[in-house]
Amino acid sequence: MNENDTICAISTAAGMGAVAIIRLSGSKAIASCDSVFRATSKNKKLVEQPANTIHHGWLYDGDQALDEVLVSVFRAPRTYTGEDVIEITCHGSPYIQQQIVRVFINQGIRHAKAGEFTMRAFLNGKMDLSQTEAVADLIAAESAGAHKLALQQMKGGYSKQINDLRDQLLHFISLIELELDFADEDVEFADRSQLSKLVNTILATIKSLVDSFAMGNVIKNGIPVAIAGKPNVGKSTLLNVLLNEDKAIVSDIPGTTRDTIEDLIHINGILFRFIDTAGIRHTDDIIENLGIERTMRAINQAQVVLWVIDARLSDTEIQNELNEIKQVVSSQEVIVIFNKIDQLSEASCFTKLEANNDFPSVYVSAKKSENIHSLIDLLSEITNKFHVHSNSIVVTNIRHYEALSHAHEALLRVTRELQAHTSQDFIAQDIREAIYYLGEITGVITTDEVLGNIFGKFCIGK
Amino acid sequence: MNENDTICAISTAAGMGAVAIIRLSGSKAIASCDSVFRATSKNKKLVEQPANTIHHGWLYDGDQALDEVLVSVFRAPRTYTGEDVIEITCHGSPYIQQQIVRVFINQGIRHAKAGEFTMRAFLNGKMDLSQTEAVADLIAAESAGAHKLALQQMKGGYSKQINDLRDQLLHFISLIELELDFADEDVEFADRSQLSKLVNTILATIKSLVDSFAMGNVIKNGIPVAIAGKPNVGKSTLLNVLLNEDKAIVSDIPGTTRDTIEDLIHINGILFRFIDTAGIRHTDDIIENLGIERTMRAINQAQVVLWVIDARLSDTEIQNELNEIKQVVSSQEVIVIFNKIDQLSEASCFTKLEANNDFPSVYVSAKKSENIHSLIDLLSEITNKFHVHSNSIVVTNIRHYEALSHAHEALLRVTRELQAHTSQDFIAQDIREAIYYLGEITGVITTDEVLGNIFGKFCIGK
Repeated sequence: MNENDTICAISTAAGMGAVAIIRLSGSKAIASCDSVFRATSKNKKLVEQPANTIHHGWLYDGDQALDEVLVSVFRAPRTYTGEDVIEITCHGSPYIQQQIVRVFINQGIRHAKAGEFTMRAFLNGKMDLSQTEAVADLIAAESAGAHKLALQQMKGGYSKQINDLRDQLLHFISLIELELDFADEDVEFADRSQLSKLVNTILATIKSLVDSFAMGNVIKNGIPVAIAGKPNVGKSTLLNVLLNEDKAIVSDIPGTTRDTIEDLIHINGILFRFIDTAGIRHTDDIIENLGIERTMRAINQAQVVLWVIDARLSDTEIQNELNEIKQVVSSQEVIVIFNKIDQLSEASCFTKLEANNDFPSVYVSAKKSENIHSLIDLLSEITNKFHVHSNSIVVTNIRHYEALSHAHEALLRVTRELQAHTSQDFIAQDIREAIYYLGEITGVITTDEVLGNIFGKFCIGK
Repeated sequence: MNENDTICAISTAAGMGAVAIIRLSGSKAIASCDSVFRATSKNKKLVEQPANTIHHGWLYDGDQALDEVLVSVFRAPRTYTGEDVIEITCHGSPYIQQQIVRVFINQGIRHAKAGEFTMRAFLNGKMDLSQTEAVADLIAAESAGAHKLALQQMKGGYSKQINDLRDQLLHFISLIELELDFADEDVEFADRSQLSKLVNTILATIKSLVDSFAMGNVIKNGIPVAIAGKPNVGKSTLLNVLLNEDKAIVSDIPGTTRDTIEDLIHINGILFRFIDTAGIRHTDDIIENLGIERTMRAINQAQVVLWVIDARLSDTEIQNELNEIKQVVSSQEVIVIFNKIDQLSEASCFTKLEANNDFPSVYVSAKKSENIHSLIDLLSEITNKFHVHSNSIVVTNIRHYEALSHAHEALLRVTRELQAHTSQDFIAQDIREAIYYLGEITGVITTDEVLGNIFGKFCIGK
């Protein structure tokens, strides 16, 4: 991959549209486009046009007209990639798109690799590495929550915090390395108590970022909600009702079918991943027990458990089941759902049940779609903490999570070493490690392998 | 549908891409975008920007940032629609695209209907009706031939010819109507022999356009090629080989499966529609006879018939079959394919067969993929006439074909009436009819229904 090449790709979604964009970036972009473009205004040359202007005309393959197009001219360094950029808006026929790309390939322009435009933006200092990753997240965002997180990261608030921490560590490491230079003289340029305070502050910040990953991850991929309970209490009916109950509940996921036991839906801008599970009961049936084992795993991985109970059970039976729930769930949020209220003979039991129930609970009829709205309200309330607040910084990227975890470990060692008055060499080594890992996030420190991993996941044309 | 509304739509292909375009058109387009756009350059207002310029910044939904975008400003009347136009290049997430459209809808901008941008271009005199239809054809073009035809029509060469014919008729009708005004005085302002000559010239032109439709249609939809012959001579094997033989042969058609007996492939920029047929033989089996009936229909509808013969047959058998072909095919081009040459014991028969064969023929082994290239060369040669030459005008649109046919009929009546010295009233009536139909093509004369039909077939956003 030669970074001096001029590159070219279709940047809009694949398939037929009204219009499509072909993008070129590199030193030859403008001249190359000029050689196949005939502007509507006679004798107009693209190379003579100012930045950020749009020009109407026709693209040619030799003498053969290819398409009527608009050409946008962008000039380095104030472009997405930091290089000269041309954007051609052509008719959205896949045939035409391919033909236009072919014309440029024939001129020695190279097909862009996945994410190569954004990688150039990184290499040319237009954005740091975590910002480029946010670009990919932004394009993939399917919910308001994921969108907000990606935008925050793209705007660089995240990077600033990481860089601040890193700069403070760099200041101290320079002092400690100075001490190493004067090792014989046994001086302390770096104030140990100040360093200790700083490391603790940084540790707290990193800890909160590391902890935010669990939250960031569910925002990005959906909050896992297990629907559990005894067999035949109406779990699947409840799932179906949740999927259709409200106009606000729609699945945006292509290929989502009702056959799968998992389903993604948005409620108030938050993505939920509902998992319908096999009913739990004591049985000797081997296959059924395998299903129950799987249910237990789903419950353990869930953030929220919707536990469905047949409202027609006796008080004692219900009390037994509520006790059972406490044995099965650990840190998950639980909502107890008393189902089948349409089949209750008397309303009195509604209040009877409240007394001995520690869990937030709701009475519904899944079959008749009764009171499902209360369940949704309860669910929204419980998962409110997953709403992204405009100032909160949340880690969503596993690469960042790992780098932060490594930095955290290194700084924990520094704390211990400071307490044990360990020699500067060790302290310096561990601080350097923390600095290294923090630098990895924003790309101050990076390797071709890391870049390959990150940009290989991008779509072509970005 | 109010044409004074400002309209808005996603103009790039559906789904996720690196970038997408949201387009607005109408008097409120620029101001509306301004109200949700914060330019990177402080205090920059879009309404103050010159035409054909691009501006970087962020789109907001209230205080909530939606996306980092480029906004292109186009000013009436030099735009696609002839109105003020805004094009927003945003990140290609379907979620973001929807959110941006929603923000404009909330401001009272209306969702554009299918083809509404192009319809406005027509209503504002930016292009005539046949040119707008060419835009839809261009977007749908899947082969070099279809692409070239659509471009020609979009450039307006077609319309010019139609309008010229129409203008000449208009000149004469004005003279004839003058005669009607002075009916009592029995004058002839319009020279009858000159009119007769003109009508004949126009008839010839229209005839050639009407005739070109068959060709235009196959270029657009694929040249139908039937693969016929006795049962078990290797017809399906040949089809499979043709589909895989050459790198140039690829199916661009989504959903094309090998299960269908029809398959579209491109050879040298021409689209072919291969139809594998049931083998022809004499049988009493009712169902098999239904299949053979269908084969006959396929042969009749084909432009080219590839007749496959087992090369191992005796000379007499082959001669009989060659005679049979002449009874089955009429005006179609025929290529006789002697298949299974890999199973021939001696090469001599190759020449033996030539003598009594009037059809262009080729020897192949479909099974071993031998000499398929010669077949493709022969096919290309025979269908060479379907190549579009840069100056030829070809009718591809059934609406134009019908209008031209009606105009043709009316003018034929005029010829007869001129010969029979029929009164001016009838001649005038028929010339008016021809003028009407010619006007329908370019949209000089049009109805809401016609417009609805044409633009309803467009994609949204064009």
